[in-house]
Amino acid sequence: MKQNREMTLDEIATRISGELINGRGDALISGVSGLKEAKAGEISFLAHRRYLKDLEATSASAVVIPNDVAFDRLPAIRVVNPYFAFSQLLHLFHDIPYTAGGIDENAIVGSNASFGQDVSIYPYVYIGNNACIGDRVTIYPFAFIGNGSIIGSNSVIHSNVTVREGCRIGERVIIHSGAVIGSDGFGYVTHQGMHHKIPQVGGVIIEDDVEIGANTTIDRGTMGNTIISRGTKIDNLIQVAHNVFVGEHCLFAAQSGIAGSSKTGNYVIMAGQSGVVDHVNVGNNVIITAQSAATKDIRDGETVSGMPSMPHRNWLKAMAVFEDLPGIKKKVAELERRMAEIEDK
Amino acid sequence: MKQNREMTLDEIATRISGELINGRGDALISGVSGLKEAKAGEISFLAHRRYLKDLEATSASAVVIPNDVAFDRLPAIRVVNPYFAFSQLLHLFHDIPYTAGGIDENAIVGSNASFGQDVSIYPYVYIGNNACIGDRVTIYPFAFIGNGSIIGSNSVIHSNVTVREGCRIGERVIIHSGAVIGSDGFGYVTHQGMHHKIPQVGGVIIEDDVEIGANTTIDRGTMGNTIISRGTKIDNLIQVAHNVFVGEHCLFAAQSGIAGSSKTGNYVIMAGQSGVVDHVNVGNNVIITAQSAATKDIRDGETVSGMPSMPHRNWLKAMAVFEDLPGIKKKVAELERRMAEIEDK
Amino acid sequence: MKQNREMTLDEIATRISGELINGRGDALISGVSGLKEAKAGEISFLAHRRYLKDLEATSASAVVIPNDVAFDRLPAIRVVNPYFAFSQLLHLFHDIPYTAGGIDENAIVGSNASFGQDVSIYPYVYIGNNACIGDRVTIYPFAFIGNGSIIGSNSVIHSNVTVREGCRIGERVIIHSGAVIGSDGFGYVTHQGMHHKIPQVGGVIIEDDVEIGANTTIDRGTMGNTIISRGTKIDNLIQVAHNVFVGEHCLFAAQSGIAGSSKTGNYVIMAGQSGVVDHVNVGNNVIITAQSAATKDIRDGETVSGMPSMPHRNWLKAMAVFEDLPGIKKKVAELERRMAEIEDK
Repeated sequence: MKQNREMTLDEIATRISGELINGRGDALISGVSGLKEAKAGEISFLAHRRYLKDLEATSASAVVIPNDVAFDRLPAIRVVNPYFAFSQLLHLFHDIPYTAGGIDENAIVGSNASFGQDVSIYPYVYIGNNACIGDRVTIYPFAFIGNGSIIGSNSVIHSNVTVREGCRIGERVIIHSGAVIGSDGFGYVTHQGMHHKIPQVGGVIIEDDVEIGANTTIDRGTMGNTIISRGTKIDNLIQVAHNVFVGEHCLFAAQSGIAGSSKTGNYVIMAGQSGVVDHVNVGNNVIITAQSAATKDIRDGETVSGMPSMPHRNWLKAMAVFEDLPGIKKKVAELERRMAEIEDK
Repeated sequence: MKQNREMTLDEIATRISGELINGRGDALISGVSGLKEAKAGEISFLAHRRYLKDLEATSASAVVIPNDVAFDRLPAIRVVNPYFAFSQLLHLFHDIPYTAGGIDENAIVGSNASFGQDVSIYPYVYIGNNACIGDRVTIYPFAFIGNGSIIGSNSVIHSNVTVREGCRIGERVIIHSGAVIGSDGFGYVTHQGMHHKIPQVGGVIIEDDVEIGANTTIDRGTMGNTIISRGTKIDNLIQVAHNVFVGEHCLFAAQSGIAGSSKTGNYVIMAGQSGVVDHVNVGNNVIITAQSAATKDIRDGETVSGMPSMPHRNWLKAMAVFEDLPGIKKKVAELERRMAEIEDK
Repeated sequence: MKQNREMTLDEIATRISGELINGRGDALISGVSGLKEAKAGEISFLAHRRYLKDLEATSASAVVIPNDVAFDRLPAIRVVNPYFAFSQLLHLFHDIPYTAGGIDENAIVGSNASFGQDVSIYPYVYIGNNACIGDRVTIYPFAFIGNGSIIGSNSVIHSNVTVREGCRIGERVIIHSGAVIGSDGFGYVTHQGMHHKIPQVGGVIIEDDVEIGANTTIDRGTMGNTIISRGTKIDNLIQVAHNVFVGEHCLFAAQSGIAGSSKTGNYVIMAGQSGVVDHVNVGNNVIITAQSAATKDIRDGETVSGMPSMPHRNWLKAMAVFEDLPGIKKKVAELERRMAEIEDK
């Protein structure tokens, strides 16, 4: 995967908006690595002060450091946020420039489907009638784009993805392999002992800069839309049910799930295997910890844990006692015995 | 998605077996919506008395109401179950009549595969040898139907579905995108430090009127079959292990799972992220609440929670105390102190 | 699926390294079944003494028994491990000999892709540039093999699998339908209110004899590799995050998940819906029970339960008291009342 690229320290400093404080600006750098893994010729970075020892020992030829760290053993570039600089460096050394592959002759394209400029539609892609594919969109093999769905510019649809009919995908969206967008919501009405399917006639709207993980499922609305707002990142194997509204810039870790008609604010974090039950409102900046569930409305800024959900602090304190439950039970029984003894006197 | 259809109130009343109590039977209706969303020309419905205020304020041109609600501001149709009527109305206004697409020339059809009448086999479908596809079956692109598998009439197989060899799918079954039916069960025998695969030579039987969600996995039996009985609805990202038997008319919410060889009765409800451990029997009408697990046999009609499972009522009461554990611990310590003081006297 | 094969008891005894103790060696056997299900002409097996009653009642024509069980009603073959013999018998009666299907003309093969001998590449397979496919590899329809990826000899890639670019799959590996190998890790750096994607430039290494379940996702490393060591078996719908290292001969049950950069030793068992949080080390021979999570480093040989994780024994004892929490609370309140009464005197 690695590209053979070289860049001078001056170039790098410019690209990551940093200041070169030691060393020669024309020194050539050929890659980026962690402090421990970096080899001569590579640049590394100090993401946190707890790695200062690794910084001292690194074999990198240059490092990116925070503005407030003094270090003069190696050429160093000072920046506000070295971890952000690291992600920029990965782009610099690894991004492959986009080249349009066109529409492969083995792609199936429905009637009235439209394409922007410079698309890359691989063989064995299915694009339905009236679908609308933006500029520089890449669609990998075995991806299904349903009738009338829209894929915004610069988005990437990986292999084996399904985007059902009538969904709107924004710009710069990445949908990983096996994800399903717009499957029917799980809606039935039970009548005379049978579960009758409620037609799911709504859609899905995925806004700009969203990323959706592998094998994640996002159901269409019953009526109206399931919405993932801009900048939100969703990991693998996550369930987003019908008519859910997810705010902006949320981060949902793998195997979490949100039940029908619930809403989240912005910057919500769901840890792995956590959940939100149906019909609740989760505020802005809420954190739901791993394997916990938001079982009622959660106010802005709260961190909740457990099932049912409680303030994380309370959960931590209660769990600290939990393992001692048998001891407490024994003490209570002992107290009762001693109490009866005293009362007898 | 919305169709441009119009129907008179008389027609609608007939189709949903209701009685028009106000207004003119020849008034035209063009769609169905929720009480808050409905616009002039649309019909809405009162699913529950708690929405009576929305009923008073709705902009709909007509409403469906339960038999025991009085309302005369708008034309109204009285029915036994307005929520069921709502699902019927969605069908009336949104169903697209089935038209057979035939077998696309880009579908791969194995030797001796057979087809009923009026099928719709999309391009890039793979159908194995000796497979048997019923009347009016729709199979979307990138679906794989293994050798000898049977798909009953009027079933729909969405894109990227895998139905492995030797599986039997009933009539009017819907399998959503990315679901996998008939993958190998997770069976090994450990011998001399190696896990040796136990060949999984059984199959999967999915009965009539079952619906299976996106990216759900249903493993084949080791010997014998994994069975999903008629009328059961299974949501997204659910695991059904080998040799599981699921009864009729169950509802399993997303990310729940059933381990090997367990059995459920009829009308079992599994909430989101819940589980059933292996080799247990879950009775009829059991409810397993969210993130809980049935860890032993569960009797008919029980609602269980927690892990290990306990009666839901007990779990609720225990969880109501759980958050107070630190307080209880403190009280016990205090009681011990006071007790010692008294005993000293 | 069942093959029409017949074998003599002598032949069978040789193949499963057992000793025939009753009956004629030339008696013909036509299949293998459980003790209860077996019919005349079939051979069955006693996996555990608790099934001795079934052994007495079986209609099988012969049985496989452990060395230390006496039984003379039927022809019997004595072996060290009858359950292992059972898996061997399933292979004997059900395995279909491999026949190479070649490379179908409807498979897409990238430039410089290479193939070993006797491969079976189905129609509608996509193989990227410079991919390397070993001897006798089978790849089913709608599988995507990315640029430069390697599939070792005798491996099977089922339908709708994605193996992204730059991944290395060992020999005798089975990847079930819908699994995704090499999807991007979930890595972002938040800068000025936006989550910026950290390019995931590492890969995935899956060693020999690994099996990966349906719709499981294994993310590529950010830098370096996500590694699944030899002999490990992973069930359906499991998440393995970026830069995870999984040891040898582990067994992970369905819907479990391991967060980023965590490591497991060898012979680790994760039960259903369990988890490992990020950046922890799980020792050898550890068991993580169902719906539990390893929230810190776990020492060799420990069984842990709960969330946060604790020794399984402690968790069992605490859970045995949990349901009685309301009773304990009541007793404590009662004790306080009685104590105050005594103190008043």
